Amino acid sequence: MRTQVKNLRYIFRPNSIAIVGASGSPAKVGAVVLKNLIEGNYSGRIYPINPKYEELMGLKCHPTVNAVKGKIDCAIIATPAQFVPKILEQCGKKKIRGVVVLSGGFAEVGNVELEKQLKKTADRHDIAVIGPNCLGILNPYQRVDSIFLPMYKLKRPRPGGISFVTQSGATGTCVVDLAAKYGVGVSKFISYGNGTVIDENDLLEFLEKDKKTDEILLYIEGTKDGKRLLKIMERVNRKKPIVVLKAGRGKKASEAAFSHTGNLAGNYLAYDAAFRQSKVVVAHSLDELFEFVKIFNQALPKGKRIGIVTNGGGLGVLTTDVIEENKLELAEFSEDTVRALKKILPSYANAANPLDVIADADSELYRKALDIIKDSSEVDILAVIVLFQAPAIDERILNILINLSDLKKKPVVVIAVGGEYTEGHREILESYGVPTYSSPSDAIKAVKKLVDYSYAARRIMKR
Amino acid sequence: MRTQVKNLRYIFRPNSIAIVGASGSPAKVGAVVLKNLIEGNYSGRIYPINPKYEELMGLKCHPTVNAVKGKIDCAIIATPAQFVPKILEQCGKKKIRGVVVLSGGFAEVGNVELEKQLKKTADRHDIAVIGPNCLGILNPYQRVDSIFLPMYKLKRPRPGGISFVTQSGATGTCVVDLAAKYGVGVSKFISYGNGTVIDENDLLEFLEKDKKTDEILLYIEGTKDGKRLLKIMERVNRKKPIVVLKAGRGKKASEAAFSHTGNLAGNYLAYDAAFRQSKVVVAHSLDELFEFVKIFNQALPKGKRIGIVTNGGGLGVLTTDVIEENKLELAEFSEDTVRALKKILPSYANAANPLDVIADADSELYRKALDIIKDSSEVDILAVIVLFQAPAIDERILNILINLSDLKKKPVVVIAVGGEYTEGHREILESYGVPTYSSPSDAIKAVKKLVDYSYAARRIMKR
Repeated sequence: MRTQVKNLRYIFRPNSIAIVGASGSPAKVGAVVLKNLIEGNYSGRIYPINPKYEELMGLKCHPTVNAVKGKIDCAIIATPAQFVPKILEQCGKKKIRGVVVLSGGFAEVGNVELEKQLKKTADRHDIAVIGPNCLGILNPYQRVDSIFLPMYKLKRPRPGGISFVTQSGATGTCVVDLAAKYGVGVSKFISYGNGTVIDENDLLEFLEKDKKTDEILLYIEGTKDGKRLLKIMERVNRKKPIVVLKAGRGKKASEAAFSHTGNLAGNYLAYDAAFRQSKVVVAHSLDELFEFVKIFNQALPKGKRIGIVTNGGGLGVLTTDVIEENKLELAEFSEDTVRALKKILPSYANAANPLDVIADADSELYRKALDIIKDSSEVDILAVIVLFQAPAIDERILNILINLSDLKKKPVVVIAVGGEYTEGHREILESYGVPTYSSPSDAIKAVKKLVDYSYAARRIMKR
Repeated sequence: MRTQVKNLRYIFRPNSIAIVGASGSPAKVGAVVLKNLIEGNYSGRIYPINPKYEELMGLKCHPTVNAVKGKIDCAIIATPAQFVPKILEQCGKKKIRGVVVLSGGFAEVGNVELEKQLKKTADRHDIAVIGPNCLGILNPYQRVDSIFLPMYKLKRPRPGGISFVTQSGATGTCVVDLAAKYGVGVSKFISYGNGTVIDENDLLEFLEKDKKTDEILLYIEGTKDGKRLLKIMERVNRKKPIVVLKAGRGKKASEAAFSHTGNLAGNYLAYDAAFRQSKVVVAHSLDELFEFVKIFNQALPKGKRIGIVTNGGGLGVLTTDVIEENKLELAEFSEDTVRALKKILPSYANAANPLDVIADADSELYRKALDIIKDSSEVDILAVIVLFQAPAIDERILNILINLSDLKKKPVVVIAVGGEYTEGHREILESYGVPTYSSPSDAIKAVKKLVDYSYAARRIMKR
């Protein structure tokens, strides 16, 4: 691993951070980042840097990084583009080994020379640079946060196992926002923008060794080194599932991608082939990226036979449709399972899969039914549909579902469609690591990805 | 139109409602329905019917409908199945012409004879019967509500133009819940269950003439009269767009559908052909049903060229991808448009489509850019992507988007991805009739349906 990649540790776990271009005007990037670090309870030292101020938000402000007496691990730069190479040179002299350049105005708008200058300076001093033209990083464990969106507009997620490498800041934050909403845990978020010094390949290598990262999300528009990307994806994906979304697939879209981060989007067929070969999980939309990764926080299934429990008949039918359309299997309940189910079900319910426990089922009936099905050898994956709106369903259903997913023997997905009451229940389940979906099709598409990954993983193990 | 279909008016606009099987035990269906009518401010007379009580929730309780002195327009029955034919006979004698049978336990569990008895009684007295085995109806205009899910669990939507005909109660309420959450207006919700007396065809005919209904959602698992369905869909869809979801498409799913409402799901190919011929809008999932119908509350587009404005570059790229994959067109900005845009954009933004106004754009820049694009003849549809999380975007953006959609000259879709802050903004926009989507793919798939419908509509007009 290159020294610069190793130096990423100063960006993710710094003991001190300087914000170059810190500001007192609330809407400025340099103000938002400073405020977020202070209010986000970052525990290290914070050094605002700006010759125009003596003090900012209660902290002493220095004119340059060199004027700071203490050691600085990481600098976040939020100045106009033309000043960045000079500031980076100062960072080098100050022995700052991690720098995040938020500023835009480089290759993406034609300033190729300025970007080359940035790279040269970074290389000469072995500085790990994230950016330019990016939102930087977020590490909920250490409360390091360079995202220049106010916290009241963009919630920050809790610490967890998902890391997210994204070329587009906006796209990235959308997923971060969803993760925060649903209580899904994030290890590291990295918006790498133009990827001039540190690119997606470096980041995948870094996350491969990162103990806090279990799954990786990757959003790319283009790469400069496709062969290396393929090789690294293939290797990392065996240990930690990678869910990837490639944007700029069509002709017009790849043109738009070029003016976005200055990277050529390339031919999607080549990317698609690389994704197949490396057996990564491919998403086709932003929502899929988020919906797919959640399910990997569980045991891999032993097969593709799904058992359904529902208190809404129509939702059972819809789920069965998607199972068939995705070439998964509806589990065939054994005689033992049917016999056991008949003992607990009301006379007007059928002991078949999908198991419709009928709209008046209470939480206890769910528990009994799930107890039977979770232990039955003919079921590999559990799909539990809950219409939380039904009169007899109370909060006990939450514990039942959390314990079910805690077993980690069989993967579980919960499907719950509805408004605020239902969404509130979904958020509680997600915060306990239970993957929930707001529609049968979202859930079963995610199951399909989990099943495919499991088959691929087993093929890889057999080699 | 049959007398029974005409008599549906007594169910949707009754001056008085009897609840047969009204109850004092909070979890019982007969209790929830009574409570919902009272707390939902239904303005007509309410008669609880149950020989076990003298009084319920402050209202006098009668032993039978015949014991009521006043006129009863509609009865909601929530008793065990075996008593239903007898109660229906009493309703007939009392000249009640609209009845909703919530009770399950008929053909769907093998009690075919009981269901035949119900039908005979209804036909003899010309009673319009919704059900059995259903959630009944909701009419937000008149506050008529027979849905037996508590209001704190399932919000009720505001009055509006969308009517929803659904065979499955659970599936239906999920969509109602979403409509309520986002402030989308509903005209009539009808869960018709087994459809013994009044089926989906009758309901489509009824809604065809209903002045408060502009668009129709249809969820079916199976129909008893496919030819009639095709004919009615074809006719109604020319006046009011029908968005249809057929469940029970696969083999296992159609088996599940049979045990759900006792209807044969039939061969999906036949349905698919009927949908094509009648040119209705076909949804493949529950979410699509809701996402598709929202967009029809606007002018039909004159073509398929889309203009994009975004403050997140990656989201512009993703949207362009989906436009190309759906065989729609990215509008080519004219020289005039480009010239006008250059005057208002910062130097580091490109005056091209997708128009990336860059992350630091404020609401005012959106207004200026949208003013130019909405009037440019090369754009048929506007897709406005807003990262509400961006620091410089304030509430003024909401008025700008509401006014834009108010023009009704060109259809508009708003794409906004994120957590609570963003969702709050989406809800405000939806309550003003602006269709919003939480992902580029959801939005563009809906646009595709609107475009296809428009082309079909024009072909129909040419005949």
